[in-house]
Amino acid sequence: MSDLLSKIDCPGDLKKLPADQLPLLAREIRELIIRTVSRTGGHLAANLGAVEMTMALLRVFDPPADKLVWDVSHQAYTYKILTGRREAFSTLRQTGGLSGFLRRAESPFDAFGAGHAGTAISAALGMAVARDRKGGAGHVVAVVGDAAIGCGISLEALNNVASSTRRFILVLNDNKMSISANVGAFSRYLGRMLAHPKYNRWKSRMESFARTKLGMGWVRQFYLRLEEAVKTFFLRSGFFEKLGFRYIGPIDGHDFAHLASAFETARNSDEPVILHVSTQKGRGYPYAEDEPEAWHGTGAFEAATGRPLAPAAAPRYSEIFGAALERLGRDDDRIVAITAAMASGTGLSGFAKKFPGRFFDVGISEEHAIVFAAGLACEGFMPVVAMYSTFLQRAVDYVIHDVCLQDLPVIFCLDRAGLVGDDGPTHHGLYDIPMLRSIPNLAIMQPKDEAELANLLFSAVCRAKPAAVRYPRGSGPGAPMPGEFEEIPFGKAEVLLPGSAAQVWALGDQVPLGRAVCGRLRDAGIDAGLVNPRFVKPLDSALLREQASRASLFVTIENGAVTGGFGSIVGDELAMAGYRGRRLAFGWPDVFVPHGSFRDMSERHGLTAAAIADAALKAVPGPGL
Amino acid sequence: MSDLLSKIDCPGDLKKLPADQLPLLAREIRELIIRTVSRTGGHLAANLGAVEMTMALLRVFDPPADKLVWDVSHQAYTYKILTGRREAFSTLRQTGGLSGFLRRAESPFDAFGAGHAGTAISAALGMAVARDRKGGAGHVVAVVGDAAIGCGISLEALNNVASSTRRFILVLNDNKMSISANVGAFSRYLGRMLAHPKYNRWKSRMESFARTKLGMGWVRQFYLRLEEAVKTFFLRSGFFEKLGFRYIGPIDGHDFAHLASAFETARNSDEPVILHVSTQKGRGYPYAEDEPEAWHGTGAFEAATGRPLAPAAAPRYSEIFGAALERLGRDDDRIVAITAAMASGTGLSGFAKKFPGRFFDVGISEEHAIVFAAGLACEGFMPVVAMYSTFLQRAVDYVIHDVCLQDLPVIFCLDRAGLVGDDGPTHHGLYDIPMLRSIPNLAIMQPKDEAELANLLFSAVCRAKPAAVRYPRGSGPGAPMPGEFEEIPFGKAEVLLPGSAAQVWALGDQVPLGRAVCGRLRDAGIDAGLVNPRFVKPLDSALLREQASRASLFVTIENGAVTGGFGSIVGDELAMAGYRGRRLAFGWPDVFVPHGSFRDMSERHGLTAAAIADAALKAVPGPGL
Repeated sequence: MSDLLSKIDCPGDLKKLPADQLPLLAREIRELIIRTVSRTGGHLAANLGAVEMTMALLRVFDPPADKLVWDVSHQAYTYKILTGRREAFSTLRQTGGLSGFLRRAESPFDAFGAGHAGTAISAALGMAVARDRKGGAGHVVAVVGDAAIGCGISLEALNNVASSTRRFILVLNDNKMSISANVGAFSRYLGRMLAHPKYNRWKSRMESFARTKLGMGWVRQFYLRLEEAVKTFFLRSGFFEKLGFRYIGPIDGHDFAHLASAFETARNSDEPVILHVSTQKGRGYPYAEDEPEAWHGTGAFEAATGRPLAPAAAPRYSEIFGAALERLGRDDDRIVAITAAMASGTGLSGFAKKFPGRFFDVGISEEHAIVFAAGLACEGFMPVVAMYSTFLQRAVDYVIHDVCLQDLPVIFCLDRAGLVGDDGPTHHGLYDIPMLRSIPNLAIMQPKDEAELANLLFSAVCRAKPAAVRYPRGSGPGAPMPGEFEEIPFGKAEVLLPGSAAQVWALGDQVPLGRAVCGRLRDAGIDAGLVNPRFVKPLDSALLREQASRASLFVTIENGAVTGGFGSIVGDELAMAGYRGRRLAFGWPDVFVPHGSFRDMSERHGLTAAAIADAALKAVPGPGL
Repeated sequence: MSDLLSKIDCPGDLKKLPADQLPLLAREIRELIIRTVSRTGGHLAANLGAVEMTMALLRVFDPPADKLVWDVSHQAYTYKILTGRREAFSTLRQTGGLSGFLRRAESPFDAFGAGHAGTAISAALGMAVARDRKGGAGHVVAVVGDAAIGCGISLEALNNVASSTRRFILVLNDNKMSISANVGAFSRYLGRMLAHPKYNRWKSRMESFARTKLGMGWVRQFYLRLEEAVKTFFLRSGFFEKLGFRYIGPIDGHDFAHLASAFETARNSDEPVILHVSTQKGRGYPYAEDEPEAWHGTGAFEAATGRPLAPAAAPRYSEIFGAALERLGRDDDRIVAITAAMASGTGLSGFAKKFPGRFFDVGISEEHAIVFAAGLACEGFMPVVAMYSTFLQRAVDYVIHDVCLQDLPVIFCLDRAGLVGDDGPTHHGLYDIPMLRSIPNLAIMQPKDEAELANLLFSAVCRAKPAAVRYPRGSGPGAPMPGEFEEIPFGKAEVLLPGSAAQVWALGDQVPLGRAVCGRLRDAGIDAGLVNPRFVKPLDSALLREQASRASLFVTIENGAVTGGFGSIVGDELAMAGYRGRRLAFGWPDVFVPHGSFRDMSERHGLTAAAIADAALKAVPGPGL
């Protein structure tokens, strides 16, 4: 086997490589990516699709002097490997290791640590304008996927490019497949070129001409070559040119010569350029080529067979949510489901299959998703918007005015609420409670287990008011789905362990931790009670006040930002009750928690039974409290 | 004078009116709007531009069966007047009176209470999909201004229309002028049609032909008629058709016959239609026609002269901010200013004039504004983003990941933080503290007066880290701008009145209220101290802890949502300090506070010195504390 990769320590080494060795190197990079991700988990399909494109970019451009901004940066593994992080790549997504995304703090080559989809053009435009002001000569390149180009901020940015700079390069990495199926007009536009009426009229005339006058032998061949030309023709007159871009494409994203000439043309352009690069998701790994969506993000797997390594655990919260919603949807045809490019991630694939007319995937358009839901709710439907907690941050404004101010029955199901582990800070769902708690009319809930998730969802549907249900990534304790849904009294907490001297209110998935803390406090002679709050808002203030009159210690534990989070809500309620005892709030501290395993991070930040019990015992020493 | 309007109690009356009387009615409506707004203040220019368009809509469509969704709804006065609110219109924006915007709770004709710019298409699409599912025949019409069409959520929604319904009517109300000058590609595209190269080549050929072969007499006249045709030609091939819309326009927005035929065509269409209606802002009121931006929103004025009624008060916070930034910009060319269509509203017009190369108005694109700022910050600039507090809600995600996670020196200046009064809940700036407080790395400040605003801004620039400075609508107490900027120690509060038994921490513009409360407590024999916190985050915990060891009552007062706000931060800090006394938090309660004067709302919600002192005295009765 060749070994070119071990000699590539920086982009300069790549530039020196003879062009005929590039395909070999691409193969080695793919092998490294597959080998590593099979062990660490991570984003596979998009990265396999971007190998040649990244190599070509690094041969034409000169980062860090030139700025390469990768949207989301879940396609930047090749970039990491070729910019001095080949050795470290084995630590991908591990505690203390390389991030799965780009980070300015990780490497000078990481011009921007892109967060959520669609930020690259804005950030790159800022850098281009900075360069223009400073009179620099460097290039700025934004690499954006076809799904992210349709999200609001991308479009806002596109709308601003031509009026802001003359030198800007946008690489549209078009793999025709966003995270989930991409239904918007943009992708339809990109995809439907060959279905264009003008083209088809012309084509049928040509066909008829060929058939009647020339015989048919060469017609098909003719079309194959012509298609490329026609595509270009129709795209050239299209969307991007209206926004002041010069359009070049489509470019074969796996053809080094084609890529190189396109990037060189772009480098020398004195007007904003869009390079439309066509790539194949999962390229070079047959399992991923066949099912690119399933291989978008993956856990560890056996490279030879593509089989997951971890044994199938209990059903994930996403699956429970999807199954519960399907059951609710059977009985209540007001229920419609909305997702923003996360049909399978949020567990909605089954609902979509069963109720295709009541399922809406709006693409990476979280803002639209919520106001669209509000519009449906105005007309008597009950939209359930399933979204990762971190992505709801993009649409808080619409939760406030369009849903809650109008008191419309929209139910937000916030998946991945809490620390997500190896995806790191741009995917942790830590801020939903602080952001939502101040919004009037909105109920916020979190179940302690899977059965309670189903029942809280049912209760939210029964109540028909704005509500958010949050639940964590991964599996719960395995409580079986209830045979009959049970309505949970609105705003009522559940006492899991009675107690009087100290009270532990552990939110949702932190109930087991709370139970362990109670155990330790009881071992130390303190009569500690355990509460499953279920409702973050409205809090069960009757129970709290009753307990406050007897307890001298309140402990809250949550899988969320402790600053302004659930503990803070409990604290405000205790203050209103005139409580004079101690209170301790545990959750993720006021720093950006890096990627790493949930267990590692919990230990690092004192979210263990030992650490919490220890702090509690220090706050109220001795059994005499 | 004619009196048609008094007989129009509902849209049915309007439909019965002979067409030749419509211009007379339009004139009466304009007179009513000018007369009312001259007394109440409100949105003038956009409403005067939309009179004929609204009348034509109501003659062709049948709300409430048909759904008319007005983006932002600051152009819907005519709609209110003609849908049964003519008499009530005199109460516009007054406490307890008609809202300045549409509200579902105000009238069945208000299909959607649009909040911020760009939500109408999403909401209307939800309604259209609901109609399709229910098999109804009604029409759904979204009316959107040319500036709002370029904001992210509009584009997300446009991207979803054609794949979701066949029956959708979008009225693009193009008055060629958003709130501030509109610089994006969209408006350039709409505006530049006549500058199109193809058109100009053709035009110059025509001109030359006319000159050499025909003489010149009739050429100009010919162009005037032809321009309309050319516009249509170039637009038809443009943006919207790519997104699956049928384009009709431009339509003269003040010509009833033209409007009626276009709306009828749209009503009968079986594909999504966009109607491009050209209107004139301020139409019919010469002062507003001449200066439409100045007359976008106005206070009370003398109708005959256009002069403001209220005497010029002390400079507004916006002006102070603008002047301070201009001074800072003189000495530090890293400073650049960014606004999202609010150059004059945020006080940046002077900076824009003085430093045109360092000023960026990105249009109604708050998300892009912030990531664009982050890009500039990566390259050594120090962007100051000036935005209303309520509009920052649209971009919190980017504050988190793109600015704070990367610890970039972007300074957010949040104007209109707190209750804004007569514009009501979609414009109140109540949620910035709850939303921002949980974001690591971000400092949050609020000055007690104008001079402190300048110094806090200076201090934020010196520190060069993520920071937000919030300040209210209107004028402050009138503290003169400091001769030299003074750096305020980071995280340090200011003791305004020493005290020990009780402490009043009054944030920013609530300092005078805090002082009045202290006066009443002292009158009751309680040794109350007053603190100007200056920093919401990081809070001056050293001072707080020192005070907590002696005081038995803490009172916080803020112009913001009390749930999760500044008082909650103080409470959390007190809990960590082991404080066992009482604490009371005052701010806007956990309900949507309606429009109305600041004074009326403060009285209604107990934000007066009497009410607060009373509650404080009840919490800690008697002088013996």
